[in-house]
Amino acid sequence: MSLKPEAACPHCGRGGPRQRNPFPTVDVVIHDPVRGVVLVERANAPHGWALPGGFVDAGESVPAAAVREAREETGLDVVLTGLVGVYSDPGRDPRFHTMSVVYSAQARDPACLRAGDDAARARFWPLDGLPAPLAFDHADILGDFVAALARFAVKSS
Amino acid sequence: MSLKPEAACPHCGRGGPRQRNPFPTVDVVIHDPVRGVVLVERANAPHGWALPGGFVDAGESVPAAAVREAREETGLDVVLTGLVGVYSDPGRDPRFHTMSVVYSAQARDPACLRAGDDAARARFWPLDGLPAPLAFDHADILGDFVAALARFAVKSS
Repeated sequence: MSLKPEAACPHCGRGGPRQRNPFPTVDVVIHDPVRGVVLVERANAPHGWALPGGFVDAGESVPAAAVREAREETGLDVVLTGLVGVYSDPGRDPRFHTMSVVYSAQARDPACLRAGDDAARARFWPLDGLPAPLAFDHADILGDFVAALARFAVKSS
Repeated sequence: MSLKPEAACPHCGRGGPRQRNPFPTVDVVIHDPVRGVVLVERANAPHGWALPGGFVDAGESVPAAAVREAREETGLDVVLTGLVGVYSDPGRDPRFHTMSVVYSAQARDPACLRAGDDAARARFWPLDGLPAPLAFDHADILGDFVAALARFAVKSS
């Protein structure tokens, strides 16, 4: 913990390497037992369907960033319900190294869903009928989420 | 996810604010059922006893950073066993905003413990006899860890 990270300057070139640490992000698995999970169609590259999420701002806690991004991208007011995991493979984002803290969440009113910032469309998708491919490593994240749900599933006979 | 973070330049002042995102860090709760948990006495400010940990490097996954920091600061080769939580309160580090992913871990050989990088001393502490105060929010983190263990504890009669 003694090394203070310092990002490089794209203008004058001083200050060390361009990126000393991964960029911290959040993603949110907004789940409804009937509707499925919310995905947004990205308005910006890389395109495709993805979990709502974005960067954590300095001065903002990670849960606060998750709730803010969910609201901005889906219009939904969410309650975080669990920590799905932390996803940090250096190749998970084609643009630069990000590390994402992923929460599960429930919408207070799923009917309020609408596409917001950075999203062309937003909709619920059933867990057994997700679009493919998903952007980034979001198929892996949702695979982990589905596997966790499956461990508690009661088989109907 | 459309906004690319850009750090400011301390030399020319361009490039936006100094810190756009929290700095991602890791901390590791290395636990042994007999010895307790490993704490390191910090050689650099802020001083005091703390969990072993440090910054996540760009290009490095978060679990890889946790294993590396444990080795550098304690000499121990650890196996990560769980995700304790993500701690991101903007005031948790007096120097700048960090967000820490905290793992539980076991040492392959606890006898190999020795103080390494950035640590003046390293030792196991019993969970019911931790030093106080601990640096950063590490008392809160260990409180959460102890509470989780307590939920599984079998009371001896």
